[in-house]
Amino acid sequence: MAVRAGQAASAAPSGVTAASGFRAGTAGADVRGDGGSRPDVAILASQTTAAAAGVFTSNRVKAAPVVVSQIHLKRGLARAVVVNSGNANACTGSRGLADALRMAQTTADVVDCAPSEVLVASTGVIGRPLPIERVRAAIIAAGRGLDRGQGRLAAEAIMTTDTHPKEAEARFEVGGVVHTVGGMAKGSGMIHPEMATLLAFVTTDARVSPVLLAQLLRAGARSSFNTISVDGDTSTNDSCLVLANGAAGGPELDAGSPGAELLTAALGQILQGLAEQVVADGEGATKTFEVRVCGALDERQARMAARTVTSSPLVKTAIHGGDPNWGRILAAVGRSGAELALDRCRLAIGGYEMFAMGRVTEAPLEQVAQALGQPRIAIEIDLGLGDGEATALGCDLSPEYVRINADYST
Amino acid sequence: MAVRAGQAASAAPSGVTAASGFRAGTAGADVRGDGGSRPDVAILASQTTAAAAGVFTSNRVKAAPVVVSQIHLKRGLARAVVVNSGNANACTGSRGLADALRMAQTTADVVDCAPSEVLVASTGVIGRPLPIERVRAAIIAAGRGLDRGQGRLAAEAIMTTDTHPKEAEARFEVGGVVHTVGGMAKGSGMIHPEMATLLAFVTTDARVSPVLLAQLLRAGARSSFNTISVDGDTSTNDSCLVLANGAAGGPELDAGSPGAELLTAALGQILQGLAEQVVADGEGATKTFEVRVCGALDERQARMAARTVTSSPLVKTAIHGGDPNWGRILAAVGRSGAELALDRCRLAIGGYEMFAMGRVTEAPLEQVAQALGQPRIAIEIDLGLGDGEATALGCDLSPEYVRINADYST
Repeated sequence: MAVRAGQAASAAPSGVTAASGFRAGTAGADVRGDGGSRPDVAILASQTTAAAAGVFTSNRVKAAPVVVSQIHLKRGLARAVVVNSGNANACTGSRGLADALRMAQTTADVVDCAPSEVLVASTGVIGRPLPIERVRAAIIAAGRGLDRGQGRLAAEAIMTTDTHPKEAEARFEVGGVVHTVGGMAKGSGMIHPEMATLLAFVTTDARVSPVLLAQLLRAGARSSFNTISVDGDTSTNDSCLVLANGAAGGPELDAGSPGAELLTAALGQILQGLAEQVVADGEGATKTFEVRVCGALDERQARMAARTVTSSPLVKTAIHGGDPNWGRILAAVGRSGAELALDRCRLAIGGYEMFAMGRVTEAPLEQVAQALGQPRIAIEIDLGLGDGEATALGCDLSPEYVRINADYST
Repeated sequence: MAVRAGQAASAAPSGVTAASGFRAGTAGADVRGDGGSRPDVAILASQTTAAAAGVFTSNRVKAAPVVVSQIHLKRGLARAVVVNSGNANACTGSRGLADALRMAQTTADVVDCAPSEVLVASTGVIGRPLPIERVRAAIIAAGRGLDRGQGRLAAEAIMTTDTHPKEAEARFEVGGVVHTVGGMAKGSGMIHPEMATLLAFVTTDARVSPVLLAQLLRAGARSSFNTISVDGDTSTNDSCLVLANGAAGGPELDAGSPGAELLTAALGQILQGLAEQVVADGEGATKTFEVRVCGALDERQARMAARTVTSSPLVKTAIHGGDPNWGRILAAVGRSGAELALDRCRLAIGGYEMFAMGRVTEAPLEQVAQALGQPRIAIEIDLGLGDGEATALGCDLSPEYVRINADYST
């Protein structure tokens, strides 16, 4: 059985190992079965049992690892996380559930904890059984190499069609104690509305109760991943997990305390940073665009409008082509379900107002075209009806997206 | 002013002029303003005032011609229809409304009726003012050439990114009188969920009340265009209009009568035939696929599931690549909002069962791949929960789609 452990740790702690008391390990299980030697299994271990929380896909087709992690999170505690890429372990029936539980059991053996303290995540092709024996051997190999220097390699091991690993870190001080929050993510595909899987893992050495941690994660995901989509219209495997082990040695951060505020901000920064990296690395993406809707009747309508625009193939292709086609943007808003009165509506691309109060403006089209040539484009829509605001992030749709997805499983 | 009338009528009646008492005329207005000489204005005239009905986009951004046609249809009567391609006259404010009314007025002058008896449709780029004087001159030129042989040219004049004109005809007999139903359509783009504009025009020489005609159209659209989407999530301009002028000389067809049943069937056949042609000519499409969902809790859920699958970029790219990626299909159903229990679910591609009762089958993958190489692919999903059934039609997503749409307006 060919098991290839990740590179020896020479790197500095980063991403999920940036915070104290977290180690990662990786190994190759040839999950894809093509004889490849890249690491495709990662484990993440906390030195002590950590508070843990997760947000998951709302798809009715939930992969086995999602089901297992949701059950294991009931107590809000975890010691380790195990992840594989190359196979989603979704639509795999009772065998899939048994395989996800075996991944947890093997990881529990490696880090010496209860299987219920292990969270599981998978990403890749749907509907194929995992090569579970190779995965288990890789978990054992990864466990031998657990090290704080392996954060980066873990971020690489969880990649599927991602072109580069995604990590983020933030620090804050409470009572003279420096706390660290770090994370890694994978996700490419179209993300919203029906992404290739988005996985994100965040660790912190802050001390915080499981209940508060779950609240902070939900709020943070709402303003980051959910602008690109985690728990809305999503894949079978989307998961965002956070572990807080208190290893920094600071006091417990209570809800509403200044320390909790700082943790909230740092967590938000990590999630937002990872979300931005995911969008920028969208399959075939050459640019990203941010759609900010204001003046909607309420936040829900603003969100519907912003997300309908970012997921519109006609808008995405226009962005790809650098075409200032504001009509497609308005048409997307018009079918989003948000209230809209054209004569109160304003729309700007790259800071240039293209449409205002029911009519087209005399925007300087050359400058607009120039703005559309930038790697990041801002679209602002003021519906002029109320106080609802929301922002969504999207990427362009290129021929490369089609090429990548036309033969993914085969 | 360069006005180019359509070719002299040598052709046989077809499409919208197949039924007795209908004539068409076309001319070029260079609506796109690129000096092109193709006919881009068409008028359709009935020899007498006809019963008329329409179904329109539900987008909150409605183009000016949609607003005007909806008002003109209040009495359920019409004498003529005027259509231009190349410019949608959408998001054009009060000037756009005035232009749509001018199109109706000029057409009324040409065919000698009241402006309120003229229905208006436009398709093309959003947000640009119409070159209304050129359009009016073209309407006048088209009026000079009104002829039963111009049906085909009218179907060509209304095209935008369509690669060929779309026509359909059907006949039925009531009491020894042959009745004809004919139609034309344009529509390409992704159709659902956010189509380039779909326009369809149907004429019949049957005699039927406006109220019954409206009922028949709604029912027919529901099982044809709405499976690809007309009045769901749609463009700013989608319109489907039907005129019945009684010129066949038969008796009025009453609701529930055998004659009305025959008209219903013929109308359904025309709408379905046009819908199929529209999907097959989807932008960049190389194949079409039909998704039949049964066993849903109700018809609404079946429709949601079927349409979510046909509009999924990940499914569409897999179909393009001939990839039997049934996992993506199930994932799309899972996020569609339809109730789903994997262990009761069956999924077949090209007649081969790929997934049944929670697990993957031993389908003959080579034959499945062969089925996916065909121009038309059948996908069947049995949710195993109830009696809800629905069918949706889609096309694949190719790099060509991106190319077409990356620089449409410029």
